[in-house]
Amino acid sequence: MASEVITGIGALATMHEGEGTLGLLRDAAVVIDAGRIAWVGPSGSAPAADRATDAAGAAVIPGFVDSHTHAVFGGDRTAEFDARMSGAAYTAGGIRSTVAATRATPTEELAARTHRLLTEALRSGTTTAEVKSGYGLDVETERRLLEVASRFTDEVTFLGAHVVAPELADRRAEYVDLVAGAMLTEAAPLARWIDVFCEEGAFEVDETRRILAAGREAGLGLRLHANQLTMSGAAALGVEMGAASIDHCTFLSDEDVEALASSDTVATFVPGAEFSTRQPYPRIERLRDAGATWAIASDCNPGSSYTTSMPFCIALAVREMGMSPGEAVRAATLGGAQALRREDVGRIAVGACADLVMLSAPDPVHLAYRPGVQLVDRVWRGGVETREWTPRD
Amino acid sequence: MASEVITGIGALATMHEGEGTLGLLRDAAVVIDAGRIAWVGPSGSAPAADRATDAAGAAVIPGFVDSHTHAVFGGDRTAEFDARMSGAAYTAGGIRSTVAATRATPTEELAARTHRLLTEALRSGTTTAEVKSGYGLDVETERRLLEVASRFTDEVTFLGAHVVAPELADRRAEYVDLVAGAMLTEAAPLARWIDVFCEEGAFEVDETRRILAAGREAGLGLRLHANQLTMSGAAALGVEMGAASIDHCTFLSDEDVEALASSDTVATFVPGAEFSTRQPYPRIERLRDAGATWAIASDCNPGSSYTTSMPFCIALAVREMGMSPGEAVRAATLGGAQALRREDVGRIAVGACADLVMLSAPDPVHLAYRPGVQLVDRVWRGGVETREWTPRD
Repeated sequence: MASEVITGIGALATMHEGEGTLGLLRDAAVVIDAGRIAWVGPSGSAPAADRATDAAGAAVIPGFVDSHTHAVFGGDRTAEFDARMSGAAYTAGGIRSTVAATRATPTEELAARTHRLLTEALRSGTTTAEVKSGYGLDVETERRLLEVASRFTDEVTFLGAHVVAPELADRRAEYVDLVAGAMLTEAAPLARWIDVFCEEGAFEVDETRRILAAGREAGLGLRLHANQLTMSGAAALGVEMGAASIDHCTFLSDEDVEALASSDTVATFVPGAEFSTRQPYPRIERLRDAGATWAIASDCNPGSSYTTSMPFCIALAVREMGMSPGEAVRAATLGGAQALRREDVGRIAVGACADLVMLSAPDPVHLAYRPGVQLVDRVWRGGVETREWTPRD
Repeated sequence: MASEVITGIGALATMHEGEGTLGLLRDAAVVIDAGRIAWVGPSGSAPAADRATDAAGAAVIPGFVDSHTHAVFGGDRTAEFDARMSGAAYTAGGIRSTVAATRATPTEELAARTHRLLTEALRSGTTTAEVKSGYGLDVETERRLLEVASRFTDEVTFLGAHVVAPELADRRAEYVDLVAGAMLTEAAPLARWIDVFCEEGAFEVDETRRILAAGREAGLGLRLHANQLTMSGAAALGVEMGAASIDHCTFLSDEDVEALASSDTVATFVPGAEFSTRQPYPRIERLRDAGATWAIASDCNPGSSYTTSMPFCIALAVREMGMSPGEAVRAATLGGAQALRREDVGRIAVGACADLVMLSAPDPVHLAYRPGVQLVDRVWRGGVETREWTPRD
């Protein structure tokens, strides 16, 4: 693989040196070699490389780390969305309609759809994406979803505990046994993480504890969907069990905030879900004051947040959640990496993955200042400039 | 110019026939000839043409008609935006900082910048854009801005009455005389429209009336920035004087709504401005109930709404203003055309301009369902598929 030097970077968001929240270096350069960042410094002193690219003053940031997606599913819920947004009465098919569509979709078609979504995400600057199962809810389909996800990313999450499978709706204890038993046994070799949707209508705190404990026993890291609709105590459970991330966090008690701040559990916000369900947005002031770490993710899914765009989520976080533009960009890069316990992505430092985004803008603030605009101009993933999400080796 | 037939359109939004708010035809085709729509009908009975394109089930809509932009200016207000969104105290340079930057920018550089912004807009589906002056505020610079605008669009608006020029801040009567006198004389041959920013801190209702009357006398159509920050009586004035559109309309009295509904004046909403200034959004329920016509526009400008993306404005209008997805798409196409009193754009009908947008989606609802995603796949403007905003002949 040829080395490459990118010079003339107007603002380089390193996340760890330079000015402000984003660790900005002005008039900077980066050298890429063998898929990694090999050198960072002033443009004027950049070493030579096999290939030279002039950023001509554009900003360069780390590729976005989207730590929460449901990017393997069948079907689409256009009609449901249209009805909800038109105020018409409707009976929500909800997650179950996607489960039915997903079960009916052949594996290769699921893979092609996931590839399209991740390519769309990459063109908006995402270079690392977590992908969950959770629309199968039976052993065979969950296994198929995890197998598809693992073709595209290291960050595969087993979410058998998304909702109770429709055929076991009256026998939820049996479904919890299945998830923590046979389904987990199939899932564990394919996944890095286990996740539970702990919420009214999904799983209770006690069920969540049992499923997470079984996952940990099977060698998986812990994640949690919690506090989306209510203050449930689930966030505190996640911190207690050492989860890497509590996702949604729309409603947090002061105790939850304290628990998060005194742990290395990340609070992951998904403002696209509040946008598309017309829920109120969470605010970050208490987390900031307490010194907690937070991330932004897309929650890409066909029901409540059918976006792959991290720039859109950044603009929402600034408009609605009280983040400064710098805080939001950091949450979408370094924050996502922390939520995945990754040190090799979400920052621009020697030795990190060469996952870079060049903006058609002089400053990362433009991601919030110019909402809805396609500002992602060029993307390098693993040191290679690309327009497609390439599968794993 | 070769004729072209586009077949296999999954959903064609004609605006005037077929189902629902968007006049949808399913499995449709369109023939383009000499820059116009020559035929619309079922895909199976489409006539032959010199070139054939298969939409493969994608949705096709009219190009967006963005009836309110300030797309000629110098400078950028990144630091001001960052400070505002970070909650830091700052003294707003506001419009005047853009006036200073614009006056200092050579005409050809202004033209290159406008071309870049309009190209960006086109790639998000905009095929007709109104462009205002208003960052010159002296005779020579206003003339330069209008000349630049007229290189790119027929819909040129003279907005000398944006704010009082800084050098005449203490002599506002003199500035009103200038706008309605020497500045208008220079502007009238270059513009189709005259516009006034009628608001506290800008121009009073009486000043507005005088400037609009002078513009009408000079042969210009009337537009108005009004009711952005307060219920000022300006909207009623605009209707009374026969303005084509009242823009912003963030605060409307019941009388304003009635006046709009009983006239052919369009209410134009610019939700991007509410987004970027954290103002409350207007709602459309009263206008819908009263039978008024409304449009959505970008208000593209470097201070309060630095977006060119009509899909972003559509998603906001659905999330925040009470529009159904169909109403929002209609407001961004046919609504914008009505706000510009154009019958040849904003619809897909035989004889209309062949300004078409093909989405990478099966249904126009996706413009709201998939917020922040680049869904505009291909754009035809004046019958020619393009990725650049070509200047006028």
